[in-house]
Amino acid sequence: MSSASLSSTGSGLLRRIESSRLFQGAVIAIILLSALTIGAKTYDLPPLAERSLGFLDTAITLFFLLEILFRFAACPDKRRFFRDGWNIFDTLVVIGSLIPLDNSQAVLLGRLLRVFRVLRLVSVVPELRFLINSLLKAIPRMGYIALLMFIIFYIYAAVGSMLFAEVDETLWGDVAIAMLTLFRVATFEDWTDVMYATMEAYPLSWFYYLTFIFLTAFIFLNMMVGAVLGVMTAEQNAREAQQAHDERDLIAQQLDDVQKQLRLLTAAVEQGRGAASPENGPLKE
Amino acid sequence: MSSASLSSTGSGLLRRIESSRLFQGAVIAIILLSALTIGAKTYDLPPLAERSLGFLDTAITLFFLLEILFRFAACPDKRRFFRDGWNIFDTLVVIGSLIPLDNSQAVLLGRLLRVFRVLRLVSVVPELRFLINSLLKAIPRMGYIALLMFIIFYIYAAVGSMLFAEVDETLWGDVAIAMLTLFRVATFEDWTDVMYATMEAYPLSWFYYLTFIFLTAFIFLNMMVGAVLGVMTAEQNAREAQQAHDERDLIAQQLDDVQKQLRLLTAAVEQGRGAASPENGPLKE
Amino acid sequence: MSSASLSSTGSGLLRRIESSRLFQGAVIAIILLSALTIGAKTYDLPPLAERSLGFLDTAITLFFLLEILFRFAACPDKRRFFRDGWNIFDTLVVIGSLIPLDNSQAVLLGRLLRVFRVLRLVSVVPELRFLINSLLKAIPRMGYIALLMFIIFYIYAAVGSMLFAEVDETLWGDVAIAMLTLFRVATFEDWTDVMYATMEAYPLSWFYYLTFIFLTAFIFLNMMVGAVLGVMTAEQNAREAQQAHDERDLIAQQLDDVQKQLRLLTAAVEQGRGAASPENGPLKE
Amino acid sequence: MSSASLSSTGSGLLRRIESSRLFQGAVIAIILLSALTIGAKTYDLPPLAERSLGFLDTAITLFFLLEILFRFAACPDKRRFFRDGWNIFDTLVVIGSLIPLDNSQAVLLGRLLRVFRVLRLVSVVPELRFLINSLLKAIPRMGYIALLMFIIFYIYAAVGSMLFAEVDETLWGDVAIAMLTLFRVATFEDWTDVMYATMEAYPLSWFYYLTFIFLTAFIFLNMMVGAVLGVMTAEQNAREAQQAHDERDLIAQQLDDVQKQLRLLTAAVEQGRGAASPENGPLKE
Repeated sequence: MSSASLSSTGSGLLRRIESSRLFQGAVIAIILLSALTIGAKTYDLPPLAERSLGFLDTAITLFFLLEILFRFAACPDKRRFFRDGWNIFDTLVVIGSLIPLDNSQAVLLGRLLRVFRVLRLVSVVPELRFLINSLLKAIPRMGYIALLMFIIFYIYAAVGSMLFAEVDETLWGDVAIAMLTLFRVATFEDWTDVMYATMEAYPLSWFYYLTFIFLTAFIFLNMMVGAVLGVMTAEQNAREAQQAHDERDLIAQQLDDVQKQLRLLTAAVEQGRGAASPENGPLKE
Repeated sequence: MSSASLSSTGSGLLRRIESSRLFQGAVIAIILLSALTIGAKTYDLPPLAERSLGFLDTAITLFFLLEILFRFAACPDKRRFFRDGWNIFDTLVVIGSLIPLDNSQAVLLGRLLRVFRVLRLVSVVPELRFLINSLLKAIPRMGYIALLMFIIFYIYAAVGSMLFAEVDETLWGDVAIAMLTLFRVATFEDWTDVMYATMEAYPLSWFYYLTFIFLTAFIFLNMMVGAVLGVMTAEQNAREAQQAHDERDLIAQQLDDVQKQLRLLTAAVEQGRGAASPENGPLKE
Repeated sequence: MSSASLSSTGSGLLRRIESSRLFQGAVIAIILLSALTIGAKTYDLPPLAERSLGFLDTAITLFFLLEILFRFAACPDKRRFFRDGWNIFDTLVVIGSLIPLDNSQAVLLGRLLRVFRVLRLVSVVPELRFLINSLLKAIPRMGYIALLMFIIFYIYAAVGSMLFAEVDETLWGDVAIAMLTLFRVATFEDWTDVMYATMEAYPLSWFYYLTFIFLTAFIFLNMMVGAVLGVMTAEQNAREAQQAHDERDLIAQQLDDVQKQLRLLTAAVEQGRGAASPENGPLKE
Repeated sequence: MSSASLSSTGSGLLRRIESSRLFQGAVIAIILLSALTIGAKTYDLPPLAERSLGFLDTAITLFFLLEILFRFAACPDKRRFFRDGWNIFDTLVVIGSLIPLDNSQAVLLGRLLRVFRVLRLVSVVPELRFLINSLLKAIPRMGYIALLMFIIFYIYAAVGSMLFAEVDETLWGDVAIAMLTLFRVATFEDWTDVMYATMEAYPLSWFYYLTFIFLTAFIFLNMMVGAVLGVMTAEQNAREAQQAHDERDLIAQQLDDVQKQLRLLTAAVEQGRGAASPENGPLKE
């Protein structure tokens, strides 16, 4: 037995282990445990619990490191492993977890990076992966509408910070703060307080707010309609094409039968004619 | 007449009574009366009214007990009675009402359980039952999106309670409280107050809130689209299949006529040929 | 010329006047003027303006009275006049306006009734009438969902007023007040203030609010989906039926041509056969 | 070479330059730079930066002036240039920018007009232009619903300012202020504060708010449904018509083949008959 086929058999075994329900269940269980330890650390805990959480954390980090190495080993084509976005994501999460928690400076960063381990649930459960992929597909569809929305926010923010900066520096100080204030207005969050304040200096400033709210609401509404339509159109097109195909097939088959019968009939007539008047040549179809 | 057929006749009578409009109307009336007594008890009432409400309550409890026993008796297959979720629900509501109101400890519990009698309206009115069934069908469709939403809430809550716990203990104390605060942010409820408080310690924390709002709004939007599509697809598929069938049928019938005519013509040609050149065998169809 | 035909000619003339663009334009102009006088009265006005508004009001009331009498006279079938809901509505608005404004007691009532004159715009502009009719059609479709929503509100209000009445009497005093508070929670209006108050007495009461919000949001979402579907299904059915009909027609016509050709061919074959073998009878179609 | 063809060659060269990727990229870059200078001016800047922004602003103004003149020169039909709404828009923006910033009176106006330069991004990027055009198409569709909404706001505002003016002059003073307050209620912005204030004088005024919220929400919901349907119907009609056409074409072609075959067969039978019984005339098709 050659070494190549041996290695291929080994990698086949690894792959069988990797795709087994038991292995995947274990990975999901460890991710959930990891999520729980992250949540537990936000509570005030006795020192003993704190220390055991630390040990658990190291164990989980090791498990994730071994798991990614195992999956890399199980992958038959090493180059394709890093072409899959989910694998890159998993590797980055594992590398992020390797930052030691001892150094007091990096403690917060290390803890924050550990939080992203919970996101590994998405990369492990196929249904969630499918969901994220389909959500990502919806982004470009909304791209230009988001750009238009940004332009409107920018223009209103520029006008707002020019006119209202002296009214309330903390809300309209510069164009960036004004955009944040406008986002607050767009979510209807205490927007009348903002309006009543500026209406004292500029009594007609209600016009500014109402046009802004109508514009954003109107564009958002159309954005939603566009999103609904985008998904629907794609789905329906596929379904209708299939259905139309099926339908056409049935009628086409019947028409084929008609044509076959006609051909037989033509042949029969030909033969009959040939018998009756043999001087005529065969009919070209 | 055997005892089996006698019992069957009796149960048939019970069933006829049960499904009569008068009986169902009476049950609905008693449920509405029960709802009114529950509502009335939340007002301050004179002792006499209070006591008559108590008597009424006992009477309603008895009526519901008799009604469920009656329906159980009317059911031809006793085992199937408890396979129907609505029957189990009704039985539980009746059992819950049997807790006596005298014991001062259980008074509140007893009163709370009596509130669920109003839900019996759903199990009695067929249209509401149908509605609830169709709402329940919508739940699994949204299951994975809800899980994804939960993961996002959990991650943001963990990060939030790590960073902002020292800013406001009552809003970001631990991961559970932080999730409640994030739910508040997701409903736009005074979310800027929460943001302005943390922006004093972390000036860039607006990024945390904006990404959270965009993520939840974006996923919620897609959830809604999914819900609309799910129902629509099912409904349209049924309708279109029917319509396509009808359409095909009409054309198929016409094609059948064409084929019949062809067959007659073939037979005619055959006969003609047979007459003209009898040495030829019959044409196989 | 008989008196009957004379009256019919007169009513014909009235009808021609009534449906003329000039007459309808005048009615709309008077309604808009009426709306402006109603709005103007909410401002503090000098006595002279107040008095001229009074005269204008009397003139508008007279105009509307004459207009409704004119339309009644122009109507060929007097009984059908009051079967149209819009006519009844117009008549009620006019009668409501006849209450004199001198009596100090009825001043407010008279003014309130005059406000409904603005609604006459809906009954006069055909597009608005059509819109209202289609909105009214949408109501029964949502009826059972609204009933379900009411049941949920009632149950939560009963539970809320039992548990939280001692926390805040003004928000949870009885079942009616509690329903108003829950409506406020459903619109996300300062709902966390309500929740934080009850969480001090019942730390787990966040569960009450979250389940309530999820239930109402979930049912509302499905209500919306239902509304979209209801309108869409009706509209699409009509369109698709038309389209399918058109499509079928074209193919059916082609098939008819095929059948005609076949019939001619059969006749030709028959004739040929008749010539070749005259002993055969004619082929029955 | 005649002067007409020379000018046509010159204008052809201009047009080729105008539609080149490099030229369009340069215009977009200048617009973005212009947007940044507008944003930068809202910050407190050192005098040197302020002065260089002023020079930059003059340069941008000149560039836009040259660009519009260039595009006018490149346009083969000068009259059609001003029939395109986008060209008029661009010209107005450029003219608006020519107001000098030196005059202290006009400084704010000049700065405000410069903000609209950002909107030129819409007129330059074809995808945004298409988006705006399709949004503009959606406006008439919503026109009558907006009118209906306005009527409801006006009636409620008139009633509100009649009843509640003495409760809170700043919220219900006159019909215009009351409409602003009702818009606030429609966005759920602290609407319960408004309601609780009036409920002290009129305990039943919750009815006023609830009916208003239900009416506006109900009509808004139907407006949204209408918007979804409007776009969808148009899009689907086009798609389905195309699809139906394709489908029909395939079947029609097959039917054509059948008819061709039948014609050949008829000719053959005719010939055969002609040979067998020459006394018969040709069959008319």
